[in-house]
Amino acid sequence: MNGKLLRTQGVTAPAGFRAAGIKAGIKKSGKADLALVFNEGPETAAAGVFTSNKVKAAPVLWSQQVLTTGRVRAVVLNSGGANACTGAPGFQDTHRTAEELAAALSNWGTETGAIEVAVCSTGLIGDRLPMEKLVPGLTEIVHELAGGISGGTDAAHAIMTTDTVAKEAAFHHDGKWVVGGMAKGAGMLAPALATMLSVITTDAVATTEQLNQALRAATRLTFDRLDVDGASSTNDTVLLLSSGASGVEPSQEDLDAAVLAVCDDLAAQMMADAEGVTKRVRVTVTGAATEDEAVAAARTVARDSLVKTALFGSDPNWGRVMAAIGMAPITLDPDRISVSFNGNPVCIDGVGAPGAREVDLTGEDIHLVISLGIGDAEATIRTTDLSHAYVEENSAYSS
Amino acid sequence: MNGKLLRTQGVTAPAGFRAAGIKAGIKKSGKADLALVFNEGPETAAAGVFTSNKVKAAPVLWSQQVLTTGRVRAVVLNSGGANACTGAPGFQDTHRTAEELAAALSNWGTETGAIEVAVCSTGLIGDRLPMEKLVPGLTEIVHELAGGISGGTDAAHAIMTTDTVAKEAAFHHDGKWVVGGMAKGAGMLAPALATMLSVITTDAVATTEQLNQALRAATRLTFDRLDVDGASSTNDTVLLLSSGASGVEPSQEDLDAAVLAVCDDLAAQMMADAEGVTKRVRVTVTGAATEDEAVAAARTVARDSLVKTALFGSDPNWGRVMAAIGMAPITLDPDRISVSFNGNPVCIDGVGAPGAREVDLTGEDIHLVISLGIGDAEATIRTTDLSHAYVEENSAYSS
Repeated sequence: MNGKLLRTQGVTAPAGFRAAGIKAGIKKSGKADLALVFNEGPETAAAGVFTSNKVKAAPVLWSQQVLTTGRVRAVVLNSGGANACTGAPGFQDTHRTAEELAAALSNWGTETGAIEVAVCSTGLIGDRLPMEKLVPGLTEIVHELAGGISGGTDAAHAIMTTDTVAKEAAFHHDGKWVVGGMAKGAGMLAPALATMLSVITTDAVATTEQLNQALRAATRLTFDRLDVDGASSTNDTVLLLSSGASGVEPSQEDLDAAVLAVCDDLAAQMMADAEGVTKRVRVTVTGAATEDEAVAAARTVARDSLVKTALFGSDPNWGRVMAAIGMAPITLDPDRISVSFNGNPVCIDGVGAPGAREVDLTGEDIHLVISLGIGDAEATIRTTDLSHAYVEENSAYSS
Repeated sequence: MNGKLLRTQGVTAPAGFRAAGIKAGIKKSGKADLALVFNEGPETAAAGVFTSNKVKAAPVLWSQQVLTTGRVRAVVLNSGGANACTGAPGFQDTHRTAEELAAALSNWGTETGAIEVAVCSTGLIGDRLPMEKLVPGLTEIVHELAGGISGGTDAAHAIMTTDTVAKEAAFHHDGKWVVGGMAKGAGMLAPALATMLSVITTDAVATTEQLNQALRAATRLTFDRLDVDGASSTNDTVLLLSSGASGVEPSQEDLDAAVLAVCDDLAAQMMADAEGVTKRVRVTVTGAATEDEAVAAARTVARDSLVKTALFGSDPNWGRVMAAIGMAPITLDPDRISVSFNGNPVCIDGVGAPGAREVDLTGEDIHLVISLGIGDAEATIRTTDLSHAYVEENSAYSS
C-alpha cells in the first residue's frame, strides 16, 4: 500500500472534519479540557469499540446507543472528570451534554440531533461533572471549530490527563484519501488511570459495516495489545468517523491497512508516554499453539510485577520470565521454552544460557522474545516497566 | 476448640520433631541458608501442596514424588538458590541432596531412604546450587539437630530470603497435642520473589488422608488467599508432617481447626512482612453469588496496581476499586455495589457517598469491603500496597 504517516496531523487531516479544543474550566488546573470533532459530511457513517469493563461510565452507555445508529455527526470529549459511578444524575449530565451540543450545532447552521452526538469523558471516577462550566463551553467550542490542522491539534491537547504529549497521527493514501486520529491514555483493554480515548477520522467513502470491520481489526492488533498495568477503565472508547469527502471508495483491504497504520502509531505513542515509563517494552511470544495463546502468554508476562520491576532495574532476570510464563493459561512444555532479551539468548530449552546475567538492558527499548516451541502462532504485547515514577504518579492522583 | 497460639514456637513445638538451621555457605551474604526438619516418629505420615505454576523447580518435582508415598522422614530446605530452570543437572542435584541427607541420617542412627526426604529450595531462579558447599552442610546439620524450641527457630531463620523476620506459630490443643509451623515468603498462589515455603508439624496421631484433608482445607483459606503481587513461584511448597508422638488421635474437626489456626497465623505474618509493605490490606467481598466468585473478585481488586498505589498514598480512591471490580470474571450489577474503607462507606449502590474523599487511610491497616448485593457468599484476600520499597527491592534483586 502506498502512503505516508505523519505525526504532525490528526483528526482534521482528512477532508470534511473540523475540530477544536478549549479551556472550559472543568479542570482545576485551568488547562484545556473540552474537545470537539465535527463531521461536515457529506456522509456520517461511524463505528465504535468500547471498554469491556462491566462498570461503564455514563458517556460509554450513551455513546454505545449513538453508535447503534451507525452514524455520528460530532464527538464531544472532556477531560477533568470521568463521569463514571455517578448514577442516573451522571447519565442525565451526559444526555444533556449531547442535547446542548446538538442545539449549538443547529444554531450554528448544521441541523443536528442529540442522537448524532457521541460523548467521551476522562478523569477521576466518581465525581459529577461541573455542568455549569461544561454547558457554556459547548456553545463556545462550536464557534472555535476550525478546519485546519490546528483544530485537530487543539482537540488532541484538550483530552490529555496525565499524558505529557498530545498524540496524533495521519495516514495519507496516495494523496487521494486520508485517515487521521488522536488519542490519550495508555491502553485499550489495559489503560493506566482513567481512560484510553481515541477518535479516528477518514474522508474515504465507506459504509458503517466497512468502518466496523476496519476498526475492530485494527484495535485487536494495536490498542488491545497495549498493556501498561492490566487495569481497564470504565470509559475506554475508540471511534472511527467517515466524512466521505474525498469521494474515493477504497478497497476494504486498503481501508483496513490505513486504519491499522494510524492505530498502531497512536498505540506506540501511548506506550512511549505511559505513566512512569522508563523502558519501552515489547513482549513477543512465538511458537504458540494459537494466536490467542500467544496473546495470553505475552499479556501474562507483560503484566507481571516482578518482570516489570526487574526491567526497571535493567536486570536480565529471565527466571522471573519463566515463572510468569508458567502461570499463563496456555499449553506449554517448560523444557522447550527459550527466552531472549534484545536478541541475546538468556534461556534455551528451559535452562539458563551462558552469559545470561550479563546482558545489557540499560537502554530504553527492550524486546523480550519467548519461544514456546509448540506451534507456529505468535503475538506481541507492548508494555512498560514498573518504576518509582509509576508508583509516585498513581499514589498521588486523586488527592 | 480449646487451645492457644504462640508465635515463639515453631516446628519443634510438637513432640517427636527436631530441627536445625546452619550456615552452609550457599548464600554469598554468609547468613544461615540450610534448614532441616526431622521426624523422630513413631509415625511419619505426611501431606503436601505444591505450586500451580507449570514451570516447577527440581525440588518440587522431587518432593511431589516423595509425597506420593504419604510418608516423610525429613525435610531439607535451602535458601540462596531456587534450583529452578536448571534442567536435568538441577534435578540430579536435588536427588543427590536427598540421598546424601538420607545417608547422613542413617549414619547418625536413623535408617532413612532418599525417598523419605522432601527437598525445598528458595532464591534466584536459573542458577545451579553450589553442591560443594551444600553437601558437606548436610552432614553438619544432622549433628546440629536439636529437639528444643531453638532448633525450630534456627530452621525458620535459615529459610529466609528477603524476609525481615522469621515466621513461626504453634497451636497447643488442650495441652495434649500440638501443631507447629514455620514459613518464609509472601504468598502461596501469589508470592513475591522466589517462593513461599512452609513446613507444619504435629504430634497428633493422624493418617495421610487426614493430614491431606486438614492441609488442603487450611491452605485454601489462608496461603491461597494471600496475594501480594499476583506472581506465583516455581518452588511453592507447604508440607504437613505428623509424628504421632502425643499418642492422641484428635477428631478431623479438631485437627482441621488446629492446622488452620497455624496456617492462618503464618499467612498473617507473611502479609505483614511482605516486600515493600507499608499497609496491611484485607479485601473482603460480600454478597457474591458463590464463594469462588467472591474469591475471584477480591483477588482482582487485590492485584490491581492502581488500587494498590492509591492505598500506598493513603488515598480513598474508590473509583479505582469500582474499575477493578468491573473487570472481575463474575456476576455483578454495578448499581448494587457498595464499598467501604475501614467501615466508612465510600460508595453506595454504585455512586459515591458523602465524605468519601475525606476518609482517613493513613494507618497501617486497611480493610476494604465490597458488597456486591447479588448473593450470600463472601471471601477475604490478604494483600499489601504497591510502594516505592516494593519497586526498589524487586528492581535490584538478582543484580
